[in-house]
Amino acid sequence: MEPKYLMLKNRLHEIADLNKISQVLGWDQRVMMPPKGAAARAEQLATVGKILYEKFTSDEMGRLLEDLRGYEQSLPFESDEASLIRVTRRDYEKAICVPTSLRVEMTRTAAQGNQIWVEARKNSDFKSFLPVLEKQLELRHRYIECFPPAENPYDVLLDDYERGLTTREVQTVFDQLKKDLVPLIAAITERGEELSVAPLHGHFPVDRQREFCLEVIKRFGFEGDSWRLDPTAHPFASGSAIEDIRITTRYYEDFLPPALFGSMHEIGHGLYENGVSSTLERTLLARGASQSLHESQSRMWENLVGRSRSFWRFFYPRLQATFPDHFSNLDLEDFYRAINKIQPSLIRVEADEATYNLHIILRFELEQEMLSGSIALKDLPEAWNTRFKEYLGIDVPNDAMGVLQDVHWAWGMVGYFPTYALGNIISCQIWEKILVEIPDLYERFERGEFDLLRGWLRENLHRFGRKFTPKETLERVAGTPNIEVVPFIRYLKGKFGEIYR
Amino acid sequence: MEPKYLMLKNRLHEIADLNKISQVLGWDQRVMMPPKGAAARAEQLATVGKILYEKFTSDEMGRLLEDLRGYEQSLPFESDEASLIRVTRRDYEKAICVPTSLRVEMTRTAAQGNQIWVEARKNSDFKSFLPVLEKQLELRHRYIECFPPAENPYDVLLDDYERGLTTREVQTVFDQLKKDLVPLIAAITERGEELSVAPLHGHFPVDRQREFCLEVIKRFGFEGDSWRLDPTAHPFASGSAIEDIRITTRYYEDFLPPALFGSMHEIGHGLYENGVSSTLERTLLARGASQSLHESQSRMWENLVGRSRSFWRFFYPRLQATFPDHFSNLDLEDFYRAINKIQPSLIRVEADEATYNLHIILRFELEQEMLSGSIALKDLPEAWNTRFKEYLGIDVPNDAMGVLQDVHWAWGMVGYFPTYALGNIISCQIWEKILVEIPDLYERFERGEFDLLRGWLRENLHRFGRKFTPKETLERVAGTPNIEVVPFIRYLKGKFGEIYR
Repeated sequence: MEPKYLMLKNRLHEIADLNKISQVLGWDQRVMMPPKGAAARAEQLATVGKILYEKFTSDEMGRLLEDLRGYEQSLPFESDEASLIRVTRRDYEKAICVPTSLRVEMTRTAAQGNQIWVEARKNSDFKSFLPVLEKQLELRHRYIECFPPAENPYDVLLDDYERGLTTREVQTVFDQLKKDLVPLIAAITERGEELSVAPLHGHFPVDRQREFCLEVIKRFGFEGDSWRLDPTAHPFASGSAIEDIRITTRYYEDFLPPALFGSMHEIGHGLYENGVSSTLERTLLARGASQSLHESQSRMWENLVGRSRSFWRFFYPRLQATFPDHFSNLDLEDFYRAINKIQPSLIRVEADEATYNLHIILRFELEQEMLSGSIALKDLPEAWNTRFKEYLGIDVPNDAMGVLQDVHWAWGMVGYFPTYALGNIISCQIWEKILVEIPDLYERFERGEFDLLRGWLRENLHRFGRKFTPKETLERVAGTPNIEVVPFIRYLKGKFGEIYR
Repeated sequence: MEPKYLMLKNRLHEIADLNKISQVLGWDQRVMMPPKGAAARAEQLATVGKILYEKFTSDEMGRLLEDLRGYEQSLPFESDEASLIRVTRRDYEKAICVPTSLRVEMTRTAAQGNQIWVEARKNSDFKSFLPVLEKQLELRHRYIECFPPAENPYDVLLDDYERGLTTREVQTVFDQLKKDLVPLIAAITERGEELSVAPLHGHFPVDRQREFCLEVIKRFGFEGDSWRLDPTAHPFASGSAIEDIRITTRYYEDFLPPALFGSMHEIGHGLYENGVSSTLERTLLARGASQSLHESQSRMWENLVGRSRSFWRFFYPRLQATFPDHFSNLDLEDFYRAINKIQPSLIRVEADEATYNLHIILRFELEQEMLSGSIALKDLPEAWNTRFKEYLGIDVPNDAMGVLQDVHWAWGMVGYFPTYALGNIISCQIWEKILVEIPDLYERFERGEFDLLRGWLRENLHRFGRKFTPKETLERVAGTPNIEVVPFIRYLKGKFGEIYR
């Protein structure tokens, strides 16, 4: 094997190790760390980040990547080796564009912004958050200037989460989505039928919730020797290696859905990371291809599997046995309707499958206006509230439940929100393909069988990791490089048409 | 402030961060990590170790330390600044003596040795462990050769755990210890009085054990916002920062002492780390001065506090309330005698306060003979068993309960064992000093008050961290740089003379 390739790989191993170390430190910080460890942990994360960045952007790395062009071209495009060189070169070329001073400032501002946001949300005080937002927007502009001009400056931000996707493309997708979704939600709302969610409230002891969640996700692929499930305030999935996956969830004693669907959501992320080919371990390709594709997996297990009737044909008797006081007098159909109630609501992370996407469209529109300057940042709450009323028909009572509800902007993550809705859409593109290839999929769910689904996803998506661009990956798994809204709308209409008649 | 000092400090911050990151990764590995994460974790730890070592032994570091000689001499010896330069220079001078290739081989052999030892102990198969031992001894010789010749080659190994202490000094201490201890244990054994340990066996639910342990160690200084207590197979103390301390313990459902005294032992280590001056955070001085001094703290809280009668005057009623079925008919005196029974036994970590030290003396003697070649490694089991019979009067039934019981040699840790007994001895030197300065110490224990003790230790020992050598540190806390056996023997005679009349 080409000696320079081995040199590159050794360097990338070190860098990938540092990256995973950051993940473990971050997991520990959010799940295990005593609160007073926070200051030292911030320094540790900064140190690892700095070393990683120095190593990744070294001249030696640039030379190796240059010298390996010939070797790369001699290899099949889809080989691990060619992919590693190709993707690393793209990452490298982006990384060296950003001066260290700006990167340091971005990291520091994100940490400070987080603290200020926590307080601002607690007090529903947008004014105290405004300077953070101003600083973050300024930093975004400086960041965008580091790169060659794009058709739309927002493209540069989007590219960090969804390489190669343009604002124009997202706009097209979201226009279509809005066109179909708004009347669909209106039709459901006009039906005036009130599905009762009362059965989902009550008293659910945490240990029994955990036990039931584990039973579910074990059937999805959670294995005790390579996974963990822990409680945390803001659930996420992380890990230290392909075979060391850490997912988290949040239990409410009086409300069942967050832990139940949350743990299915996070195992979706985890299964993606866990399914990456072991030949990519210790490289920066050993993770999902993009945020949207990642989200397509979490939403698939949470919604397409976990909120399906077939799934509950198998699991509902078990849920009844776990909480007999609660569910013994409720039949499956009423439970199924309760977990699938469509109703516009204030908080994105608690929204249903349909209205969720309107939250995202709203963010996407505001982000572009913030970036172009067509809206003054101080007017954001008003713009949020007006548009929220327009799209979701709800009056926003305060900024904590409105524009301040999410942390992303405090961290400087502008361009991230679209990936949530794109994930929903992509999950249905993939789903239609799966249903063709595994026609008895739902019957399998009724028997508690999910192995074939997992195997299919691993074979057609997970194992590639980040070898290909999001579009190349989407083409492999869904047969087209384009994000298409039709399957998602078809799914919503089919499912909720039946539920709401 | 001297600009070069700031440069040094910045470099040391990075190195200290990497050191703490290793600790967190190690804690996670032993407490949280799913088993299949092991291979990736080993790589991550190796990567951090390699980067840390490269940064610490860089030429630039050497130059800075050289350039700062004048600045160091202009400062008071005990200042943080002079101490940081002085101690770092000593660490640096040792570190650069060892070639990277040898260091890598030592790390690799330790990891392999660990695996082989686990199997060998399980099967009580010394033969399969012999090659590891041979390799480790060979590596020790190569390591020793990296340094200037010492009076005794063993000095070089000892110095890694107890800087500046010589084999001759340990020999003198242990000779005296043996002289006093052997007849003392013989006298106790000859009394023939069988103290009953039956009350310590029974059924003790883990959650109630944990609750009681937490109640105890909270009074010692365990605070939920800067500490954790978790279960693990082989208990230890670790941490991510001065205010992020992680201790671990092991619960047996049918036997109370391991979790009870084990958690007091580990909080002793934790209080030392937690008591280091915050001005030393993010430097390599932010930890205990040596292994012996560390062990003096764990043994002090475990034995001098936790096995004292005054301590149990306060806690025994609480223990009775926690396990009413068990202790309601047992009076304090019988309980006190049960937890203080002296009886030679096979396993070091389960040994009582007196006989424990004979296990260590035996290891110390064998280690020197192994290193000098006066004993063939293949004859170790026989030598172990013969001497064990001689010192402790017990026939060793197999190697798993004999020479294979401890992991240290598998890791290449030769020269470490003595620090355990030295810790016992030092704890009593410090204790006598404390009793002079806090005459009502035991009365305070009877009221559940341990703050003054903790404060004294922090003021006179903990806050210094690793600013001074072990001897300098001992002089500050105990009034003499010498390790003296008399207080320990006086303590044993006083306590067990009374118990065994």
